[in-house]
Amino acid sequence: MKIVSAKKILAGNDKIARENLEFFEKEGVFVLNILGSPGAGKTSLLEALLPRLRESMPVAVIEGDLATSQDAERVAALDVPVVQVNTEGACHLDAAMVSSAAEALDLPRGGILFIENVGNLVCPAGFRLGEHLRLVVLSVTEGDDKVAKYPPMFQKTQAVALNKVDLAGALEFDEEKVRKDLERLLPGGRFFRVSARTGLGLEEVETWLREERACRFEETSG
Amino acid sequence: MKIVSAKKILAGNDKIARENLEFFEKEGVFVLNILGSPGAGKTSLLEALLPRLRESMPVAVIEGDLATSQDAERVAALDVPVVQVNTEGACHLDAAMVSSAAEALDLPRGGILFIENVGNLVCPAGFRLGEHLRLVVLSVTEGDDKVAKYPPMFQKTQAVALNKVDLAGALEFDEEKVRKDLERLLPGGRFFRVSARTGLGLEEVETWLREERACRFEETSG
Repeated sequence: MKIVSAKKILAGNDKIARENLEFFEKEGVFVLNILGSPGAGKTSLLEALLPRLRESMPVAVIEGDLATSQDAERVAALDVPVVQVNTEGACHLDAAMVSSAAEALDLPRGGILFIENVGNLVCPAGFRLGEHLRLVVLSVTEGDDKVAKYPPMFQKTQAVALNKVDLAGALEFDEEKVRKDLERLLPGGRFFRVSARTGLGLEEVETWLREERACRFEETSG
Repeated sequence: MKIVSAKKILAGNDKIARENLEFFEKEGVFVLNILGSPGAGKTSLLEALLPRLRESMPVAVIEGDLATSQDAERVAALDVPVVQVNTEGACHLDAAMVSSAAEALDLPRGGILFIENVGNLVCPAGFRLGEHLRLVVLSVTEGDDKVAKYPPMFQKTQAVALNKVDLAGALEFDEEKVRKDLERLLPGGRFFRVSARTGLGLEEVETWLREERACRFEETSG
């Protein structure tokens, strides 16, 4: 007879996440976990970033969804290696799912592996996957109250991309409120204003990814 | 030593949900569980519907959030009785939370109690609260792929309100795709096109709520 507590499940997940991270480091793969609400624009941001990055480094994607392979098909259409994980109803990816997916993937050694989590502003926050960094995509169409209302997601990331800023004019969106809530929950975190659709702000995200990857994997000449 | 399986938790929740429903029926309260992604417009839809409905019947609201009482404050500003439930990190309301909230609430006997769930297109689907009906709010800004990608949410509701249709023109949104996915997952379900902001389609939702309430609580003259 076995008792499995939620705490033990999280501890077990953390153990696999650490193993994943060790594996990715050994293989020279920088890993970004992308999180956000359904429809925040996670896949669209990937579609915009991948062509820019792969000019100079290999890239690959693990897509997490409850059902369908629609997001993986969008990435595959760019000729980027991609594995779809269907969570069969689970509200987040976990480290074991990522481990299995990584085995099936053509690893982007010397480059970046993107993991797009299930669209959910709550559950994925608690599950480490073996990523180096997290990026939460928040869209202006979700409203300016979401950081305050979903604190764990924004406390456990290193960066936030405010997406669909091209639509902000058509909406009553108080960006200052979002920035203030983020300063409180994520002091020192990176903040990007982007539009995956128009391309606005993507250069900053790209530069950030290159620098974060470089400081972990590239030997310094000094 | 106790073992609590997920199945038992759901069964326990269902039992409390049945008790809640019996209580609401006895008190003459019609209950709608409102679900959807963060920022789909659940609170905005309530803000638009409540003033229309309360001209002829009492209304009240239970608000579910991880943190803050921002949504409850928006409802309270309309002079509508409201109780805020903070889930302390849980990704959905459960029947016990609703039971406690109902005790603290001035019950809208002869009217409608709205329960606004945590913004989440996954977890709340599995938890009955004691509601008569569910309404999932889906916004066009989330994209036209969400019904197919989050099937449990759309299989377990009775109605879907497509919100922010006034923005559909500015986006590439294939409403036909959404309708087809819904016909597959929710055959016979009600579908409303609304804009909480402009008021479009609210009359249909209002009429639906009045009729659904009436058929459960009002004596027929025949």
